[in-house]
Amino acid sequence: MFAGLFVPQEVRQATGGRAWLQAMLDFESGLAAAEARAGLVPAEAARAIAEAARADRFDPEALAAEARSFGNPAAPLVRALREAVGEEGAAHVHRGATSQDVLDTAAMLVARRALQPIGAQLRAVAAACARLAEEHRATPMAGRTLLQQAVPITFGLKAAGWLAGVDRARARLGAVPLAAQLGGAAGTLAALGGDGPRVAELLAEELGLPEPALPWHTERGRVGELGAALALCAGALEKVALDVELLAQSEVGEVAESSAGARGGSSTMPHKRNPVGSALAIACARRVRGATSVLIGGLAQEHERAAGAWQAEWEPLSEALALTGGAAFALREALEGLEVRPDRMRDNMAAAGGLALAEAVATALAGSVGGPRAKQLVEAASARAAEAGTPLRDQLLADDEIRSVLSAEEVDRALDPAAYLGSAELFVERALAAHREFEEGT
Amino acid sequence: MFAGLFVPQEVRQATGGRAWLQAMLDFESGLAAAEARAGLVPAEAARAIAEAARADRFDPEALAAEARSFGNPAAPLVRALREAVGEEGAAHVHRGATSQDVLDTAAMLVARRALQPIGAQLRAVAAACARLAEEHRATPMAGRTLLQQAVPITFGLKAAGWLAGVDRARARLGAVPLAAQLGGAAGTLAALGGDGPRVAELLAEELGLPEPALPWHTERGRVGELGAALALCAGALEKVALDVELLAQSEVGEVAESSAGARGGSSTMPHKRNPVGSALAIACARRVRGATSVLIGGLAQEHERAAGAWQAEWEPLSEALALTGGAAFALREALEGLEVRPDRMRDNMAAAGGLALAEAVATALAGSVGGPRAKQLVEAASARAAEAGTPLRDQLLADDEIRSVLSAEEVDRALDPAAYLGSAELFVERALAAHREFEEGT
Amino acid sequence: MFAGLFVPQEVRQATGGRAWLQAMLDFESGLAAAEARAGLVPAEAARAIAEAARADRFDPEALAAEARSFGNPAAPLVRALREAVGEEGAAHVHRGATSQDVLDTAAMLVARRALQPIGAQLRAVAAACARLAEEHRATPMAGRTLLQQAVPITFGLKAAGWLAGVDRARARLGAVPLAAQLGGAAGTLAALGGDGPRVAELLAEELGLPEPALPWHTERGRVGELGAALALCAGALEKVALDVELLAQSEVGEVAESSAGARGGSSTMPHKRNPVGSALAIACARRVRGATSVLIGGLAQEHERAAGAWQAEWEPLSEALALTGGAAFALREALEGLEVRPDRMRDNMAAAGGLALAEAVATALAGSVGGPRAKQLVEAASARAAEAGTPLRDQLLADDEIRSVLSAEEVDRALDPAAYLGSAELFVERALAAHREFEEGT
Amino acid sequence: MFAGLFVPQEVRQATGGRAWLQAMLDFESGLAAAEARAGLVPAEAARAIAEAARADRFDPEALAAEARSFGNPAAPLVRALREAVGEEGAAHVHRGATSQDVLDTAAMLVARRALQPIGAQLRAVAAACARLAEEHRATPMAGRTLLQQAVPITFGLKAAGWLAGVDRARARLGAVPLAAQLGGAAGTLAALGGDGPRVAELLAEELGLPEPALPWHTERGRVGELGAALALCAGALEKVALDVELLAQSEVGEVAESSAGARGGSSTMPHKRNPVGSALAIACARRVRGATSVLIGGLAQEHERAAGAWQAEWEPLSEALALTGGAAFALREALEGLEVRPDRMRDNMAAAGGLALAEAVATALAGSVGGPRAKQLVEAASARAAEAGTPLRDQLLADDEIRSVLSAEEVDRALDPAAYLGSAELFVERALAAHREFEEGT
Repeated sequence: MFAGLFVPQEVRQATGGRAWLQAMLDFESGLAAAEARAGLVPAEAARAIAEAARADRFDPEALAAEARSFGNPAAPLVRALREAVGEEGAAHVHRGATSQDVLDTAAMLVARRALQPIGAQLRAVAAACARLAEEHRATPMAGRTLLQQAVPITFGLKAAGWLAGVDRARARLGAVPLAAQLGGAAGTLAALGGDGPRVAELLAEELGLPEPALPWHTERGRVGELGAALALCAGALEKVALDVELLAQSEVGEVAESSAGARGGSSTMPHKRNPVGSALAIACARRVRGATSVLIGGLAQEHERAAGAWQAEWEPLSEALALTGGAAFALREALEGLEVRPDRMRDNMAAAGGLALAEAVATALAGSVGGPRAKQLVEAASARAAEAGTPLRDQLLADDEIRSVLSAEEVDRALDPAAYLGSAELFVERALAAHREFEEGT
Repeated sequence: MFAGLFVPQEVRQATGGRAWLQAMLDFESGLAAAEARAGLVPAEAARAIAEAARADRFDPEALAAEARSFGNPAAPLVRALREAVGEEGAAHVHRGATSQDVLDTAAMLVARRALQPIGAQLRAVAAACARLAEEHRATPMAGRTLLQQAVPITFGLKAAGWLAGVDRARARLGAVPLAAQLGGAAGTLAALGGDGPRVAELLAEELGLPEPALPWHTERGRVGELGAALALCAGALEKVALDVELLAQSEVGEVAESSAGARGGSSTMPHKRNPVGSALAIACARRVRGATSVLIGGLAQEHERAAGAWQAEWEPLSEALALTGGAAFALREALEGLEVRPDRMRDNMAAAGGLALAEAVATALAGSVGGPRAKQLVEAASARAAEAGTPLRDQLLADDEIRSVLSAEEVDRALDPAAYLGSAELFVERALAAHREFEEGT
Repeated sequence: MFAGLFVPQEVRQATGGRAWLQAMLDFESGLAAAEARAGLVPAEAARAIAEAARADRFDPEALAAEARSFGNPAAPLVRALREAVGEEGAAHVHRGATSQDVLDTAAMLVARRALQPIGAQLRAVAAACARLAEEHRATPMAGRTLLQQAVPITFGLKAAGWLAGVDRARARLGAVPLAAQLGGAAGTLAALGGDGPRVAELLAEELGLPEPALPWHTERGRVGELGAALALCAGALEKVALDVELLAQSEVGEVAESSAGARGGSSTMPHKRNPVGSALAIACARRVRGATSVLIGGLAQEHERAAGAWQAEWEPLSEALALTGGAAFALREALEGLEVRPDRMRDNMAAAGGLALAEAVATALAGSVGGPRAKQLVEAASARAAEAGTPLRDQLLADDEIRSVLSAEEVDRALDPAAYLGSAELFVERALAAHREFEEGT
Repeated sequence: MFAGLFVPQEVRQATGGRAWLQAMLDFESGLAAAEARAGLVPAEAARAIAEAARADRFDPEALAAEARSFGNPAAPLVRALREAVGEEGAAHVHRGATSQDVLDTAAMLVARRALQPIGAQLRAVAAACARLAEEHRATPMAGRTLLQQAVPITFGLKAAGWLAGVDRARARLGAVPLAAQLGGAAGTLAALGGDGPRVAELLAEELGLPEPALPWHTERGRVGELGAALALCAGALEKVALDVELLAQSEVGEVAESSAGARGGSSTMPHKRNPVGSALAIACARRVRGATSVLIGGLAQEHERAAGAWQAEWEPLSEALALTGGAAFALREALEGLEVRPDRMRDNMAAAGGLALAEAVATALAGSVGGPRAKQLVEAASARAAEAGTPLRDQLLADDEIRSVLSAEEVDRALDPAAYLGSAELFVERALAAHREFEEGT
């Protein structure tokens, strides 16, 4: 009921029970194919195994029930696959492998496959950020620190920061060292005699996964790194969603998520326009962290196979993948339909009486009176403005010391947000350039 | 595929999508009934709503898809329920309530209901611990600190410690302050005019949930406390499972999980007898913590409804419940079929050359030579025993200073584990008495 | 450098190295006193130990260095205490106890002592919430869901929700089952012969800590529960701080933290008035969760003493305590100096064009046209108002169907926030009554 | 008191308050130097600032107390530095920068500097693993899955797995994209006019930190990635420590940590030889995860500076660094002094009655009777052996079907662990080669 609310269909399929089942079967058919190429298994047996290894021929519920006796679903699956292959080929199924080989390689296959639709969502999020950065490179808005207006920035700069974060996380995710796993009972491949390394190499080739230098059964760095990369991705997305939500507040109103259809409506309140995409993205991101904590918390696994920490990985890995996809999808919808309101951005700075430009005025004054004195003067004027509820401009113009240094025109220039944007545009350019480079490279 | 491996059927049903759906519908029919009693809704409308509010009449997938627009599944469910009720009664569905009322009350209902089968599993675990404590109150085994043999304890004392931990966690879980939720759009119940508090009271009565002093929409202590209590439960179970696994090691062999059926077998190795129940319990416990971290991490929710932290709770809450049930079930199987080997317990102490009795010897010596000197003498003898690989006894008898104080018989008495059990039996009694009292009280 | 920024002096002292050192020494002198009362140790030896057991007589740095060989600081402390006591009394130091007894009991003493100043801060926070609830029980403001204005509430109701959360967390924290620990090498108290239980009872009495039914060395529920209770506290505080920050935003401005002194100023921007108390409270709360995750993650400890999970507890426990105190202190400052601006609360609702009252209008209409139609009409008017940027009132009055049912006066009444507060005041009363009851009980 | 127990002196210094203070001062002097080179600040002022910017000239306690008003220690430090520099230079201190620039750049400096001693400890751990892999490449021991003997491996292969994990984590840690931070009040560098980017470039150069494409104030991926890399490191170390502890159990005894000095002793038990290095390493690793959870949990920071999540980073970052260093140091001590007992490794396999070779026998049989039948035969013989408590060999030789296929000699060959090591040695070679390559590259 909830899965469909948070995770897009394509990602759910790529991380669900059937995807795992198929990946485990792909391990077995890949192994048979590798062993056939290595001359250990007759070619026709490998073909029979490949033919039988189709997820829709197996009953996940029944396998799960049977799996309780073994503590993992590979053992019953091997049994069922042998049955499906028939007496002839049965002996060639799962040859030299162990349950952990099946599940670890399956996990890597599931991850690699799920990273396709997840990656597509992430790319779309990045593209939406890039578009916003491009379009609003010169749209002034209040920069806010500790949720207080600070100095002006541009909405484009904000979006450029989002873009940089998302692209860094994408790069990180793309660099996770996935690898096939084949070690046999305890990592020596002894049951394959001298052919072990050759079979491992061919298996990796068959499955299109990198071959590791040695079996990694209880060296869980790969799984931990995948989890960490997903959490970093989710965090980069959550940052964007958080900003969108804050900007979409009734009292800020500088952006709004699309209200096409009934989107963002309330079951009771007729006027609501909720930032549902951002809220869903944040919900997903929080849950990715929960799942990742299980993966990172389970790096230390006993001896040659763990009794608990390993078995704890499977579903959290699926969840971390699925919900990163969910966060990206929800945020993409939020960004692609985002209504941006430059006028409201300008109004909000004005409504704050120009206080966001206080630094600009201080900077303008500093040349004549020195930084510390400039700060004092503006601080006093700001305090008077805040107290009286009048614009900062009035207070500045009423201050003799300030007027002795700055003309009314100079004060107005200092109070123009568009004139105090520093290197915002340059930074936007740099972020966009880095993004283009990244896209070309991927 | 994995859910069936970790979570028993009954618990899965109580925490799954359908259980949530029914609980949400129960909120709506309970609300209508309460409003009928308060005179706000015609009795026949309430009856019609109650009749329509059956989970099997709704399509969870379709509701989930529709829910994306709202960010929660209550809004589409209300729409669908209105449709099911027909034009007449539609206006009386969900009167004065908001989506959060539906989902928060449903969460409490799901929790209360799921705590039945979970509680039954936990009780069975406690009973198994109590039985082991009872039966083995006088079975000596090595106490182990930092995984080194320390001094003798009894297996009964170990089991009594397990029991105390599990019972404390059960008590904690039973004390979580579940409560109905009805606040309307922002917690004032304004849409119900002056009838709000009366309706809230009747709703709680209808659903058999405690009534809170005031709506708790963004006061998430209840949810956090439930999560924490589940994590404490899971931790208490994990402690037992960890000890079982360590005792079941090939080289320790003091207990073994049942190997009835194919249980504990390996897909490859013919001789394996894996502690699968304990491993599954540990896997579940680790994941409970991941889920709980989301719940505890989301206590701070914005204003009158959160934009992300709230939506993140639903599935982790289900998981924390389900996997606590899974941990209890797996551990119960492990304990109920546990083979305990008192001979092996005794042998392991002997094989360590009696080093676990070193403190007993030091205590026997201390009366004559003082504690520090006694410790020195035994330390030296232990070191010589460890180096030579001979029993401690030989070294003690070969030491003139020791012999001047203790006779060979006295040394042997000091080296008898059964004679150095201190208050183990008393502590077992106390734990059992506390357990009986707890069971009578619950 | 940072500790002083986050944690108040008194709490820092109660949780710092010296506090632990003294607590460990208190265990040793309490043990000697108990053993003297039990007739196992000469009274003068117990006195000598009590005299020597003063933290300022020991060098924490040197003890820590020596502790590396043992993996815990109790062993070197016992050695140093024996030295300080002199040859005579040395043999009576630490009699029958083990390092874990020292550290576990010390942890409980540290917790109980630190809970005094922490509790005082928490009480002050609750008192500040109660005062705000009392004073602003009838101050209307926008209730906000998903950060959008929803329907009116009162600031008093918001504060009452804060109060309920903080008081529940305080109750939880006060109920944590602290207990003395004395089990000897592996929990049997064998080195004390038959006197163990009596000594354990007297020790608990000496230290003013409850006596547990049996030693709890690797039954870590107490530590986990303490951690969880602190995280729940921190979460309740964080909720308040988050609301304060959101209300203090430049564009909302409904509250402001005090700017007395340089408080809330910026190193650069002359006009800033940052919500520093709330920010510090949130920072502390986030870190409490990190510390608690270590405590809850370490519930499963091996056999009779863990090799890692136990040693990991000490500093996170101190941190969880210290930072809960820090969060409370920072939030207390924020609340006690809080400037509340009822006019701004009213203005913000008006600036949103009265949309927060849309539900009120729908409710007013529902009697005549039915709920669904009422919602449609108001939804349409709200949409037109939002689009045109005009007040909702104008659109309502311009709608014929609405006007056929509601007079202009009735519309105005429906649009008055003060008239749509439902049971807000009652709920405030209830929260205050519960608070008074709680305070009387504690 | 505890810090000295867990973290080596050099790492403590590199991550302590003084290190942060100096790093903040280095930012200020680096900024002045950069601005001098850019022509914005007189060279003599920059020199004066550099001279004043020495940590020992400032009082951390006083700064921390003053910092409470600002919510961060940069503001009071700037004030104090200005005072120290004197009126002349004061105006040139902190020019164009904001508090977050100071603290973020300081965090990066602290990290980069602390990674020196941490990296040295990690390298030493890797070297110790490599030495063990090298020396014991052909030392047979039981491979263990779910803590049960499975099939033989070599101790060298186990150590090679440790090495691969530690080296991967080191590589990950070395690749974290540290970077200088200079953005001014909200990331535009507006206060520096057009000179911002040039100053940012020169600042990075002055401090020897990479220059980011744009300011990264609320794009916290770098901090999160650093935290994740430390947690992955800690996890790789914990895996080794866990294996050492398990191998060092009294009943396993295949390795022992050094007992030189009083190391590993107990305050009570004269014979204990506790794996204290491993226990400390595990304790540290658990705490690194707690700290990292704060860093990863705080990736989403509001707008241009967060009100809580940012302030929460400083100490957890220090802790994650310090405790990763602590874990490495403790494990290094454990490994460098590790006593390895090949005889015990062999004996433990024999004591298990040769069951670890069951797969080897099945493999030997499979050629004649087929895999499934071979497994059945050996399973039955293993069960009989386990039940009777006799060696597997006896049961194999007593089985007619087996004897019809294998001679006694062939059975003995199959039961020789050294003959069933598969590709263990090759995998050791590969791990060592990869390690040499990594060391040459770093």
